[in-house]
Amino acid sequence: MQKLVLLRHGESVFNQEGRFTGWTDVDLSEEGFAQAKRAGQLLAKHGYNFDAGFTSVLKRSIKTLHIVLEELDHLWIPVTKSWRLNERFYGALQGLNKQETIEKYGEEQVHKWRRDPNEHPPAITKDDDRYPGKDVRYKNLTGRELPLTENLSETMERVLPFWGEVIVHAMRESKQVIICAHGNSLRALIKYIDLMSDEEVTDLEIPTATPWVYELDEELNRIRHYYLE
Amino acid sequence: MQKLVLLRHGESVFNQEGRFTGWTDVDLSEEGFAQAKRAGQLLAKHGYNFDAGFTSVLKRSIKTLHIVLEELDHLWIPVTKSWRLNERFYGALQGLNKQETIEKYGEEQVHKWRRDPNEHPPAITKDDDRYPGKDVRYKNLTGRELPLTENLSETMERVLPFWGEVIVHAMRESKQVIICAHGNSLRALIKYIDLMSDEEVTDLEIPTATPWVYELDEELNRIRHYYLE
Repeated sequence: MQKLVLLRHGESVFNQEGRFTGWTDVDLSEEGFAQAKRAGQLLAKHGYNFDAGFTSVLKRSIKTLHIVLEELDHLWIPVTKSWRLNERFYGALQGLNKQETIEKYGEEQVHKWRRDPNEHPPAITKDDDRYPGKDVRYKNLTGRELPLTENLSETMERVLPFWGEVIVHAMRESKQVIICAHGNSLRALIKYIDLMSDEEVTDLEIPTATPWVYELDEELNRIRHYYLE
Repeated sequence: MQKLVLLRHGESVFNQEGRFTGWTDVDLSEEGFAQAKRAGQLLAKHGYNFDAGFTSVLKRSIKTLHIVLEELDHLWIPVTKSWRLNERFYGALQGLNKQETIEKYGEEQVHKWRRDPNEHPPAITKDDDRYPGKDVRYKNLTGRELPLTENLSETMERVLPFWGEVIVHAMRESKQVIICAHGNSLRALIKYIDLMSDEEVTDLEIPTATPWVYELDEELNRIRHYYLE
């Protein structure tokens, strides 16, 4: 049996301030650090020993994984970082206060932007400072890969190649794999693994720094899944 | 022009206690954390922006590199960890107090063990708790790759394949590369890059957390090298 653990990063500074984050590279809050440490201790208590780790190129996830591996005394495992595990790109909402956005656009619209897998937040333009084409870490992405906005379906489209080509391959050689990523890149993965409908995924919310465990058979079919407590 | 930075990890708990470390996976001391942070700040001040990082599978180096990249806000770069960058395997001396070892074997012998590139420390046996074959992180190594003791020449023999096959390849695609490793794995690398004789390398001591910069031409020949201050 294989075990795959999905972990959303600990609380970030923007989570704390109630702002849309997306690809903004904000740090963990103090509480986020503590959450990550508790997640690591919980995994240690249950005897997890990962063989491989995967994360995004955003520091809130990279640091969460580092803290977890430190608690497990497994800092030495290979960790692969990919933009494909980044949070959903939130377009022109990135950096905005959620409450103010609700006041401006209405609760229903904001809820749609946040949860409806086919709804796009307003797009940025390429001259926006938030355009990923201006960030050196994305210099090898093609124009088409650089988002101006993303709905969950598009997030899923860019997460899946990394899942299928990289993570699945690693799982063929490993017993326990951890993916430390973001609310929406993990929702995209779970939608795929669990064959969820658009309606089902709309209601799926993933708490920060709470290990979500999949037990999978040799063909990587789900046997069961649960939050670790 | 290419830049390659070699960095020895910050002071470890064993450095502080004056004990032989080798492959013992000891943590950074508090001073070691502070040293790593200062090294990162120094590199930031000089405008370093690494494209790729390499380190050992020992936490004092992994953490030093993490702290440095955090200071540079470059946690997102790919980091590759390999046992080939580990400290020299110090055999039966690992864990022993250096002063007590000098009292037992004499200063001259201990100095030979520490500096002479052809001198082996006493070997352990395979039933020793320090035998790397008992550590899961080395499970994919062949029997021949698992050391019982190492002199600097043997350290060099297992560092060089990683240099030649992995780091050089990365340097072909990158402008700035950092290797965060250990006193003797770095001595081995420097001996190779600088074509040093056994006599020259005997006197080479590398201070902790002090960036050693190589400027290299397109053929990766040394233009110059210096400590960053």
